[in-house]
Amino acid sequence: MVGMNPIDLNEVLATFDAAWSPRIVTRVNDYDIRLARFDGEHVWHVHTDTDEFFLVLDGEIEIGVRDPDERVVTLSRGQVFVVPKGTFHKPSSKTGASVLLVEPAGTLSVGDAHDEVPEHVDVTTGHLV
Amino acid sequence: MVGMNPIDLNEVLATFDAAWSPRIVTRVNDYDIRLARFDGEHVWHVHTDTDEFFLVLDGEIEIGVRDPDERVVTLSRGQVFVVPKGTFHKPSSKTGASVLLVEPAGTLSVGDAHDEVPEHVDVTTGHLV
Repeated sequence: MVGMNPIDLNEVLATFDAAWSPRIVTRVNDYDIRLARFDGEHVWHVHTDTDEFFLVLDGEIEIGVRDPDERVVTLSRGQVFVVPKGTFHKPSSKTGASVLLVEPAGTLSVGDAHDEVPEHVDVTTGHLV
Repeated sequence: MVGMNPIDLNEVLATFDAAWSPRIVTRVNDYDIRLARFDGEHVWHVHTDTDEFFLVLDGEIEIGVRDPDERVVTLSRGQVFVVPKGTFHKPSSKTGASVLLVEPAGTLSVGDAHDEVPEHVDVTTGHLV
């Protein structure tokens, strides 16, 4: 998994079009570096045991959070945000976006508890590239 | 440390000029997300117990690695690389660069073993912003 060659994030992005279907770009110890396209709405969910890191590479995203009152955090290119463990959140993007994620390997895209998962959301721990 | 507001990486970069003096932008569980300026040469060093993740945000960097033969990996903007634990490496940048790093909190900038540290290299576990 940990290769000895550089990886170009744009080249990885060129290999898939699907939104809400994260790719595992590489690993740092037992953490994944994932790359995902955001487009439309994900689903309210919570990771009970882990924080989740978002870096917007392109486009703009919103992350609904309940902490505990519901509010929306907006992130544009070059901005980062960490959703703390135990915080319900719902990512979305009105315009489409490319996002780099950092979270422990094995973290499920819809968390440990979630609303009903719509068909366009991939229930996955990430796909190897 | 884990705040509930987005952080703009360019705003953090604007707060410091020093090369080889990483800032801790935020944390994901017990991992740091760090931001550093690279300019000139760092020092050969090794992290015996942890991988280290590099994402070039701007500019171009080189990472000398001994695996075991010495070679140089070149990374430009949007490219990522993981130096595996136990691998001696020396980051450098001919042109100057901005780099996002992911590694466990407490990881020392010059690792667990290193060549003599030049004065321009900050021996640190990262500075809080």
